[in-house]
Amino acid sequence: MMGQMMQMPLMISSLITHAARHHGTTEIVSRRVEGDLHRTTYADAERRARRVAKALDRLGLATGARVATLAWNGYRHFELYFGVSGSARVVHTINPRLAPDQVAWIANHAEDSVLCFDMSFLPIIKAVWRQCTTVKHWIALCDADALPKDSGIDGLQSYEAWVDAESDGYDWPAFDENSAAVLCYTSGTTGNPKGALYSHRSTLLHAYAGALPDALDLSARDCVLPVVPMFHVNAWGIPYGAAMTGAKLVFPGPALDGKSVYELLESERVTMAAGVPTVWLMLLNHVKQHGLAFTHMRRTVIGGSACPPAMIKSFRDDYGVTVLHAWGMTEMSPLGTVCKLKLAQSELDADAQLAVMAKQGRAVYGVDMRIVDPDGRELPWDGQASGDLHVRGPWVIQSYFKGEGGDPLVGGWFPTGDVAVIDADGFLQITDRSKDVIKSGGEWISSIDIENVAIAHPGVAMAACIALPHPKWDERPLLVVVKKPGAELTSAELLRFYEGRVAKWQVPDDVVFVDAIPLGATGKMQKNKLREQFKAHKLPNA
Amino acid sequence: MMGQMMQMPLMISSLITHAARHHGTTEIVSRRVEGDLHRTTYADAERRARRVAKALDRLGLATGARVATLAWNGYRHFELYFGVSGSARVVHTINPRLAPDQVAWIANHAEDSVLCFDMSFLPIIKAVWRQCTTVKHWIALCDADALPKDSGIDGLQSYEAWVDAESDGYDWPAFDENSAAVLCYTSGTTGNPKGALYSHRSTLLHAYAGALPDALDLSARDCVLPVVPMFHVNAWGIPYGAAMTGAKLVFPGPALDGKSVYELLESERVTMAAGVPTVWLMLLNHVKQHGLAFTHMRRTVIGGSACPPAMIKSFRDDYGVTVLHAWGMTEMSPLGTVCKLKLAQSELDADAQLAVMAKQGRAVYGVDMRIVDPDGRELPWDGQASGDLHVRGPWVIQSYFKGEGGDPLVGGWFPTGDVAVIDADGFLQITDRSKDVIKSGGEWISSIDIENVAIAHPGVAMAACIALPHPKWDERPLLVVVKKPGAELTSAELLRFYEGRVAKWQVPDDVVFVDAIPLGATGKMQKNKLREQFKAHKLPNA
Repeated sequence: MMGQMMQMPLMISSLITHAARHHGTTEIVSRRVEGDLHRTTYADAERRARRVAKALDRLGLATGARVATLAWNGYRHFELYFGVSGSARVVHTINPRLAPDQVAWIANHAEDSVLCFDMSFLPIIKAVWRQCTTVKHWIALCDADALPKDSGIDGLQSYEAWVDAESDGYDWPAFDENSAAVLCYTSGTTGNPKGALYSHRSTLLHAYAGALPDALDLSARDCVLPVVPMFHVNAWGIPYGAAMTGAKLVFPGPALDGKSVYELLESERVTMAAGVPTVWLMLLNHVKQHGLAFTHMRRTVIGGSACPPAMIKSFRDDYGVTVLHAWGMTEMSPLGTVCKLKLAQSELDADAQLAVMAKQGRAVYGVDMRIVDPDGRELPWDGQASGDLHVRGPWVIQSYFKGEGGDPLVGGWFPTGDVAVIDADGFLQITDRSKDVIKSGGEWISSIDIENVAIAHPGVAMAACIALPHPKWDERPLLVVVKKPGAELTSAELLRFYEGRVAKWQVPDDVVFVDAIPLGATGKMQKNKLREQFKAHKLPNA
Repeated sequence: MMGQMMQMPLMISSLITHAARHHGTTEIVSRRVEGDLHRTTYADAERRARRVAKALDRLGLATGARVATLAWNGYRHFELYFGVSGSARVVHTINPRLAPDQVAWIANHAEDSVLCFDMSFLPIIKAVWRQCTTVKHWIALCDADALPKDSGIDGLQSYEAWVDAESDGYDWPAFDENSAAVLCYTSGTTGNPKGALYSHRSTLLHAYAGALPDALDLSARDCVLPVVPMFHVNAWGIPYGAAMTGAKLVFPGPALDGKSVYELLESERVTMAAGVPTVWLMLLNHVKQHGLAFTHMRRTVIGGSACPPAMIKSFRDDYGVTVLHAWGMTEMSPLGTVCKLKLAQSELDADAQLAVMAKQGRAVYGVDMRIVDPDGRELPWDGQASGDLHVRGPWVIQSYFKGEGGDPLVGGWFPTGDVAVIDADGFLQITDRSKDVIKSGGEWISSIDIENVAIAHPGVAMAACIALPHPKWDERPLLVVVKKPGAELTSAELLRFYEGRVAKWQVPDDVVFVDAIPLGATGKMQKNKLREQFKAHKLPNA
């Protein structure tokens, strides 16, 4: 027997129409590529998203056609999110930090029909546009009079002229909620990038779960600044969640340095910001250096890579900001866990709370997770057993775009490639990427644990721990370190710093100091490059 | 083109398995009919819900079969919610405050196969069980040794014995998320009660929306006490939302007086409670009388009928408790709006905030609403225009159970029967909750039901029942009667005539005899004129 409730598909367009209707005057503030601050509202963004939809109709774009973006966080990018998906096309966000050839490879693989780009990425587009054989329409996200006359790009249009040519009259269509809505490629650390193809349904359910009090806790009293880019797994779903809840949005554009972000946080009275540890390090350094404080920010979501406990502590103890440590991945839309204390943990003392907050947190409702041993047997949630992390849920991928890589699932579960421990309260702790773990004498050393100790040293700016082959122990850890400007620090001093902080056999065998650690397009340290760079490094005692 | 995400149906069972896995030790505390306080956990509730599912399998109950409950808020009722729906049957919650004949009528209409009841309702069951021709299994929610030996009810079993006979081994099935899960009857303001048949999908989406920060704001740091009964639109969805978020649950059982509720709020450190204004009046009176305070309660959701602004103010100013005024209806699962201030309103002064908080609030995301004039034209949201309130969304009914009443929709919208104003910020205010219904202590009394009884009296020619304001119950019914020519009839005689025909609390407080009742052009009684005429009438006990 079926229920007798209205059959209304979960549509991404309903988020922006809800925001326009219930939060029409709520602001969307954007730092533009031009450097100025632009202000609009949900009502106007919805109106312009309708024009985007009509403009795509005028181009004759089929249902399911891919419209690519190469853009910073900003109001035009936001309008494209809704105009493209809402009119039954697919937003394909491309990471502009990729090499130009990779951008072209991805655009071709996705068979993008339209590509919209911020003017700061004009050089990339100039370099690759002839290679992008499926793209028929190039849209520069700028005013008509800012359009370069001599770009050489066939049929280049300005976004403003393109949108201005349309009227507002448009009815958002309703269609199958399982239709494709968003295409995001993984960073492709092994082999070519693979696409994750989200649906309206998966995006809506993810938005509901992500806005819950124990996740990002979004409401109409919030002002949210996503530093995490909209070209990277939809800025963790914040544009959708903000529209769902009517939170004010502040987009930082390309200015992600500590000073620029801090100024926006203060001037726009931001209550919540989200980003990766690297960006927050710049922010904290700026704030410390100038003796500043956060007057409105109450919490910050940190994900993308493990957040050093020292950063969580500094935010809390020095600035009264709660860090919500989060974990997810492109294949998960991306939200998996958020570290929000339960009643029991919120009654612990400050140090004990910090130990919990350094974990990646609890699964948001909708995500099911398990850890398994190498034979696929489920391991207990006891805070001790460490195993391969598997996930499943309505916003986890079933397969990659075009079936690349075959069936990724194991018995209905998606294997994340992470190694994790889960405690009895359901708090997940990622101990490592399975490929980054250092296997020493049959024991596993978490590269992340070793890096966290280094980061806690006052002279260390950045640290990566990698495995080097070892004749006796199979592998032993090497620590690669970038010192803070002006810091005096020797290998021996840093290794002494590990005493009492990790087991003796986990202490790195050696330290090398470098000027920079290579970062990937999503800001993650590229340990494969480091492993290549230091493969001939001779460890002492090896 | 379809997205490539996992196809996982939204299942009610996944709420309780999530709670058991992530919040296994979180408590569910119940004041029982026996008077004692019972403590269990989500892990144990899930285990016992599996036994309920197995016990229903053993009875040979088909998919979609209705399992009725006549029960207070408590852990056994909670287990039935999940065991019944989770095993693809339908929970049918019956309001025990109905007259026994009405209980039997509804059980027959629903074609209930099983009926589970609290021992306090044994007299009702004794009175009606022979009339309930479809019910094959009677389950008393008690221990085996508390089962009355001489009930006379064929095959009466104790819930504990019934559940204890099963083992824990059970795998929750996955099936179509649009399958029926819950059946709730409206109070039947015009004619017989009609059933609203919720699905797993509608219940899950409602739970997500209801737990959002701008709705009930549920988290694993909360302890929630629903005074609103589980037999009345699923206690506003709190059992589902609490399982979704891992909030501790405290069930008050039958003890809803101020002292009992207050003691539970304090001893269990309740952070949020939900109920109708009448119950809160008793609570506030108790707290005031004894000079008490709320040490943990931070907010309370009040719905069911309009909450007096003085109550909102007293909770806030005297006790530091935020009232969340809410509005919904059985046909809406029931949540429509919750009054949570936006950023702009939270910066108003205390009086201006109170004026906003007295409204019914903003639509939770998923509910779409509009007000229309008598010609069906949409009216502006300007805080002035007043019109018929229409709603739509995935947890709004499409039609009533068995198609009763035909197609209730108007152009895809459900007409609520309420008249409302909506302001520019989207805050809804019900101006005339529904034309004629009498809202007494959070329960609705059908004026037509009351009139029908009167009409059945040999001395009555015509009768109209209207609401008069009442200090304790909000509204109480006044019966306006035209006697048949020559009939001798007193108020007391007529009121005695109601005994056994309607529930005691539905009996009018007073009767006035008139020469004529004003009729409109189509022959309908003009109750608005009567309300005007008798607005100064003094009810006894008022």
